[in-house]
Amino acid sequence: MGAGLLGDGCVFCAIARGQAAASIVFEDEWVIAFMDLQPVTPGHLLVIPKSHAEGLEDLQDDIGMRVWAVAHRLGRALRLSGLRCEGVNLFLADGEAAFQEVFHVHLHVFPRFKGDPFRIEADWRVHERRQLDETATAVRRGIAALDVLPR
Amino acid sequence: MGAGLLGDGCVFCAIARGQAAASIVFEDEWVIAFMDLQPVTPGHLLVIPKSHAEGLEDLQDDIGMRVWAVAHRLGRALRLSGLRCEGVNLFLADGEAAFQEVFHVHLHVFPRFKGDPFRIEADWRVHERRQLDETATAVRRGIAALDVLPR
Repeated sequence: MGAGLLGDGCVFCAIARGQAAASIVFEDEWVIAFMDLQPVTPGHLLVIPKSHAEGLEDLQDDIGMRVWAVAHRLGRALRLSGLRCEGVNLFLADGEAAFQEVFHVHLHVFPRFKGDPFRIEADWRVHERRQLDETATAVRRGIAALDVLPR
Repeated sequence: MGAGLLGDGCVFCAIARGQAAASIVFEDEWVIAFMDLQPVTPGHLLVIPKSHAEGLEDLQDDIGMRVWAVAHRLGRALRLSGLRCEGVNLFLADGEAAFQEVFHVHLHVFPRFKGDPFRIEADWRVHERRQLDETATAVRRGIAALDVLPR
């Protein structure tokens, strides 16, 4: 396997191996969860698979579900943590264009509260049904293409 | 059961029952995926459980994993759809403070590309290890509190 598959030089792989500092909150055979160094709000967590995967494409289905399950549970735990938490966001960035910065797949889980500094900007116009149906057709084409790929 | 549990008046429940218009791309026994009316980018999808749950707290663990599994697959399908897609974001808002607007849990899946209008703003300062360790202690307290709750 190449360096990418082994995750050589990957800081999240180093954390998963216990070779880099991290404030860990949960760990099992498949995933590890620790505090983000640059928290959007105090309590901002990252859940990662221990085995290296860059993004959604090379993340195994069952490992992905375990990442989700832990994130779901941690989202609920944040509300009981005593940290300020009136809501929770989950966020995943797959690819540089999607704001991924560390190329070891990670699911963000962070507390939210009124007046916190997290903001999203986008073009929120309502699209017409005809446009949406056309896009849905394209997505179904993508699903069909996926079905014939080896996994 | 109360109105909330049955999802009376909930637009996503109406979509799940086939009683409201939606551009559907995928459906199985547990979840349904359709185009967001106000897409951040063309291809913006929502994956929801068919049975009403408001957020992470009342979302059943196994249904949540199914929502994730479908979102994971759709994220991969977007890259094969022919729509502009150089990256993918997953996003979930749990609670009003986290920007939830429809109170039937939904996982956003949307394509990203260079120059698209989606932006995130936050305070990205690096926190000190001591602070992170303290927050981790609070999160572990939350996990412990969760462990004694009925589920």
